[in-house]
Amino acid sequence: MADAFPGDDQTTVAELRRNMAAFVEERQWRHFHSPKNISMALAVEAAELLEHFQWMDSEESRRLGDDPEKLAAVAEEIADVVGYSFAIANELGIDLSQTIRAKMIKNAEKYPAEQFRGKHQLGQDGKPIG
Amino acid sequence: MADAFPGDDQTTVAELRRNMAAFVEERQWRHFHSPKNISMALAVEAAELLEHFQWMDSEESRRLGDDPEKLAAVAEEIADVVGYSFAIANELGIDLSQTIRAKMIKNAEKYPAEQFRGKHQLGQDGKPIG
Amino acid sequence: MADAFPGDDQTTVAELRRNMAAFVEERQWRHFHSPKNISMALAVEAAELLEHFQWMDSEESRRLGDDPEKLAAVAEEIADVVGYSFAIANELGIDLSQTIRAKMIKNAEKYPAEQFRGKHQLGQDGKPIG
Amino acid sequence: MADAFPGDDQTTVAELRRNMAAFVEERQWRHFHSPKNISMALAVEAAELLEHFQWMDSEESRRLGDDPEKLAAVAEEIADVVGYSFAIANELGIDLSQTIRAKMIKNAEKYPAEQFRGKHQLGQDGKPIG
Repeated sequence: MADAFPGDDQTTVAELRRNMAAFVEERQWRHFHSPKNISMALAVEAAELLEHFQWMDSEESRRLGDDPEKLAAVAEEIADVVGYSFAIANELGIDLSQTIRAKMIKNAEKYPAEQFRGKHQLGQDGKPIG
Repeated sequence: MADAFPGDDQTTVAELRRNMAAFVEERQWRHFHSPKNISMALAVEAAELLEHFQWMDSEESRRLGDDPEKLAAVAEEIADVVGYSFAIANELGIDLSQTIRAKMIKNAEKYPAEQFRGKHQLGQDGKPIG
Repeated sequence: MADAFPGDDQTTVAELRRNMAAFVEERQWRHFHSPKNISMALAVEAAELLEHFQWMDSEESRRLGDDPEKLAAVAEEIADVVGYSFAIANELGIDLSQTIRAKMIKNAEKYPAEQFRGKHQLGQDGKPIG
Repeated sequence: MADAFPGDDQTTVAELRRNMAAFVEERQWRHFHSPKNISMALAVEAAELLEHFQWMDSEESRRLGDDPEKLAAVAEEIADVVGYSFAIANELGIDLSQTIRAKMIKNAEKYPAEQFRGKHQLGQDGKPIG
């Protein structure tokens, strides 16, 4: 069913944020939506995503797409996480695209590609390890 | 600094997803990026967001924007959550905008506005409560 | 019903850990019980606890005991968190009582009582704030 | 250092709970310790435990004990999770040993050993799967 809607290529972040804001507004839920409360709801959704993967090994998790029903369930959990991310950004007046772009530049400086290729963290000697 | 970048009104979800994919690709990190592992990293970032609010009361959390430094720190945590949401969607080939739109219609049916106005959940008698 | 069992005053940590170990053993679940997987299951239970409190304000959460049904539900979530804490300690061979006692001494040094009375963290000037 | 303390075999749950209560009392931290706030702090500690395992595969996580420094760090995270579990049980007046024992009987009925041996959940046909 979801195929009927405009996809990621045709959708700005602002559009999805406005949809979320309208949903909250129509139900007069802003008095529940303190940043503290939303941060909790977001963590709950992140854990529901986690739950799908808890007893699965890593390779099995890569093949999740083979089971369309499970994939749809996982996709909904991710949607819930992103939805609450938009909700908290709405309450705090944060521009997410700007923040994400700035953070990626910061991360690119922290993890220079040529140094961290195939490696993920620094060892005790200060050199990246796999 | 973040102000220098295109904002949510000028940015499609697909653009940010491609930035994330390029970041991972350049570092050859896909072997770390099983959906299982990313779901864990996402939950960790969600908890770092939570941490900012743990000892604060709800009203205080609404005034977080008064302290630009704290606001910037919180904005970065949200960016990290959204970044990993994009990363897991990339690995699993999920269109987030379609999923979010479909989920919102489902939620609108689950929580009809006229019935849930100012109320958040169902009581034991099946009627919404505040 | 729970009243029928020996309580916290009559129960060593080791007893509860052995109960948990027997439960896992009888079901031959140790191949699922890698520390990585248990850490995920524990985080999921922690979030189920969180979920009870997400839209409630702090004062309301202090009165949870007024509703015996809710209190029982919350008690079970805490039991699940502690149960998985025992399960991961079992797999890794960690003595929890020793670790907790050592950690408390460390915390007492980090947060000297006379300095942190009624205050929770350090301000930017290095002095504790409320 | 932790070896100097009484271990899980010599320690009742009540003793550790009283230590935690005294720690909170001495710092007059009970006004921070609403069940809502503690549930957040607990989730944060659960995520710090998770973080140790996020990029590690399951088998690697079973060998964590080979590195005493990492094991000690992980042990402290588990201690923090259990510590906050005691703190919230203290605030709500819950007996954890009774709750855990009652929950285990419930779980034993939900997952009969002979049926779930080596298997972890029910398939769509209602039979347990591995």
